[in-house]
Amino acid sequence: MDFTIENALIATQDDYTTLSVGVSDGKISTISPQVESVGTSMPADNKLLLPGFINAHTHSSEMWQRGIMSMFPLELWLAELYDFAPLDIEKVYLSALGTAVETLLSGGTSVVDHLVLIPGKELETIATAVRAYQEVGIRAFIAPLIQDESLTAGIPSGDTKQSHEAYFRSTQATLDILEEAVKLFHNPDIGMSILVAPTGIQLCTDALFTGCAELSDKYNLCRHSHLLETKAQEKLAQEKYGCTAVEHLQRISYLDSRTSLAHCVHLTDGDIKILAETKSTVVHNPLSNLRLGSGIAPILKYRQAGVNVSFGCDGASSNDSQDLLEAIKIGSILHNVTDFDYQHWITPRQSVKMAALGGAIGLNMGELLGTLDVGKKADLVLYDLTSLSLLPRTDPIGLLVLGRPTNIVDSAWVNGKQVVANGKVTTIDVDNLRQELFKNSQWQTQRKSKTVAELEAHYRLVMGL
Amino acid sequence: MDFTIENALIATQDDYTTLSVGVSDGKISTISPQVESVGTSMPADNKLLLPGFINAHTHSSEMWQRGIMSMFPLELWLAELYDFAPLDIEKVYLSALGTAVETLLSGGTSVVDHLVLIPGKELETIATAVRAYQEVGIRAFIAPLIQDESLTAGIPSGDTKQSHEAYFRSTQATLDILEEAVKLFHNPDIGMSILVAPTGIQLCTDALFTGCAELSDKYNLCRHSHLLETKAQEKLAQEKYGCTAVEHLQRISYLDSRTSLAHCVHLTDGDIKILAETKSTVVHNPLSNLRLGSGIAPILKYRQAGVNVSFGCDGASSNDSQDLLEAIKIGSILHNVTDFDYQHWITPRQSVKMAALGGAIGLNMGELLGTLDVGKKADLVLYDLTSLSLLPRTDPIGLLVLGRPTNIVDSAWVNGKQVVANGKVTTIDVDNLRQELFKNSQWQTQRKSKTVAELEAHYRLVMGL
Repeated sequence: MDFTIENALIATQDDYTTLSVGVSDGKISTISPQVESVGTSMPADNKLLLPGFINAHTHSSEMWQRGIMSMFPLELWLAELYDFAPLDIEKVYLSALGTAVETLLSGGTSVVDHLVLIPGKELETIATAVRAYQEVGIRAFIAPLIQDESLTAGIPSGDTKQSHEAYFRSTQATLDILEEAVKLFHNPDIGMSILVAPTGIQLCTDALFTGCAELSDKYNLCRHSHLLETKAQEKLAQEKYGCTAVEHLQRISYLDSRTSLAHCVHLTDGDIKILAETKSTVVHNPLSNLRLGSGIAPILKYRQAGVNVSFGCDGASSNDSQDLLEAIKIGSILHNVTDFDYQHWITPRQSVKMAALGGAIGLNMGELLGTLDVGKKADLVLYDLTSLSLLPRTDPIGLLVLGRPTNIVDSAWVNGKQVVANGKVTTIDVDNLRQELFKNSQWQTQRKSKTVAELEAHYRLVMGL
Repeated sequence: MDFTIENALIATQDDYTTLSVGVSDGKISTISPQVESVGTSMPADNKLLLPGFINAHTHSSEMWQRGIMSMFPLELWLAELYDFAPLDIEKVYLSALGTAVETLLSGGTSVVDHLVLIPGKELETIATAVRAYQEVGIRAFIAPLIQDESLTAGIPSGDTKQSHEAYFRSTQATLDILEEAVKLFHNPDIGMSILVAPTGIQLCTDALFTGCAELSDKYNLCRHSHLLETKAQEKLAQEKYGCTAVEHLQRISYLDSRTSLAHCVHLTDGDIKILAETKSTVVHNPLSNLRLGSGIAPILKYRQAGVNVSFGCDGASSNDSQDLLEAIKIGSILHNVTDFDYQHWITPRQSVKMAALGGAIGLNMGELLGTLDVGKKADLVLYDLTSLSLLPRTDPIGLLVLGRPTNIVDSAWVNGKQVVANGKVTTIDVDNLRQELFKNSQWQTQRKSKTVAELEAHYRLVMGL
């Protein structure tokens, strides 16, 4: 459907202006001060139009455990997470819907789902997430989370001798599943991409990384991994490789301009240089990094070094929401305490650019998404500037990024298709989703993770606690 | 009006139970597993009942500049703030209403407004805020912000020689205004208290502090100040007193169990001991501390030392919202990056206690507010656990504190009077407020602060930038 968004407030270089934006065939076809109605007219008075943001790292099924995870660092938190992980396809479906809805209603039009696969139902898990995202109509980048080492291998050994159970599936079998998923579901033109996504150096062999890189080259897939989220991983990299994780990943040619790396908290200045040289993208997940005590990623340094940075919510068990505007706010102001010189601080307009264009570049779609330019895909969000949380009127982008905007997304389009109108997701029945989430869960408080009980003493020992 | 909240979910020591809570004469009169209807029945199935939180530090009129303030540290930010401060009583009224509404809809039933006074209209400013808070029905602690030194005195001199203009009003004249405000408006029984509130060591003489302490003793008023928000203030204290600000405030007997101190970012271990000994309260304003790059207050240390801690939003120009749940979330998880031992991290239940009882203690009302106990004042909030942002069902308090709850306050009562019902503030016309805020403001982007231009070079020099 062709349409024109009329009289929207739009950011110029350092001000705002009122323009009309025409959309044809899913792309921005005109941007003009005059109303030249192409197709249906969409009045947008007192509304701010921005390119859709990208929720550049999450794990949708973690939604089932948000609010209940213990206050643990990543390694123990993961043990608890997996002890209670949902193993039910219906739950995968519902949490993907929930993740898409929360992302859309906080300004995101794309989601990167580093999707946890149910053992034995790997392709079914992926198919289910594909179905959910297509129903909602969000642009989806499904990154099936794979590994080929067991959970305990992710904790450094220190001076102790540790042996680990073999992973339950061979590296090649995992790569075969991934390739099958690519053949079945990878279709960027309709907004559905598959990424290669070995979880990270803590649980993957070089064979898995290089197998993924080969698939990435063969099918032109983006690459997505966790990287140096914790001090434990920093230590583990030295144990495993005798160098930093970044040096190792460069050596095995995993890093390139299609590679996005979640977290990047514990990098050396040399590592940062490598990310800049390889044009890798850092996905900043500030809330998760705080919740898990991982640390503050050196985002100002990345920006100064020319490394592309985008924002992610991370999974809802380590955040515990999927509100992209919250991640953008905290991921912007958090760094003001790391550098006393305020001239280096991130401005709200820079945050918007990181969230939109930064996200697009990290997914190798910088030419297609992330700005309001003629010819780009119409992934657009219209914010209602008459919402109480965006008043009094001051600087619209400042209010959006630094405030706590609530109920402010009036409309959203993905590939030119409207998916939010009048503040409501139009493609699925959200009230029904709400009821299903309610029915499929119970209030609880006391949980005891068996695996945490097994691992905690070693973790404390090796981390010097 | 007497009423019973029936079948609400209520936190027990480490679990939840369903109870009914009766309210008579503005106080909690019964808490019981049986429904013994006292007065009107209020069904509360699938709702969580908590004591109201306290927004323990804000400046309501900053709402007029939220979203537009430059990315500056406090000292320059203040210069910009005052250059564009609203000088219009109607605006004071509207922003007090807005602050009250946002506080109520994020779980707060009390607000401490460190109220910026319009020069020459000091009592009128206070009267206006009193009127606004009484109309909304929130419990209000109005802390008229006073100082007796000029703005430039708040920046350390370093090796330069600095002289400062005298403040435009004498210390005694300021104290007289304050005493008049106490006589006119201080009435804790109806939920309206006046606090003595010298802004902080950076802009106040000892005469002002001791004059305030005398009024505090004479009328049993709480004391409220900023304390060591920035490195610049830490430096200034040494220049002014040759000791830390806390040591000095103890020496002049300003610190006691009625004293609450906003920020407390740059304290020594010795200072922390003094806060514990004097039973002073720290008001943690995490979002403001990040936004202004002030630093991370050592909240875990305060808790370990037995210092009472509560949460504030701080003014909406340095946050830039008045959402108390946001401040509680960030003010809880932020500290996980300051202490690697997760056993010290703040749990969601501890956060709730800090926000409710911690706030009450800091206002010398620990016996009257902050817990669900028979005999306490009925300042209560009922959260709708069927809201999408609190689903799936897991641990209700975990979801509330760690998530990003939106549209979740179903009902709120202050002094037993209902002020929120079905998610809407019932006491004022919020849609009208929204329209007034819209009408009285304009979108803008470029502002140039004259005072910043005057101060910036000196600030950079003295702070080593």
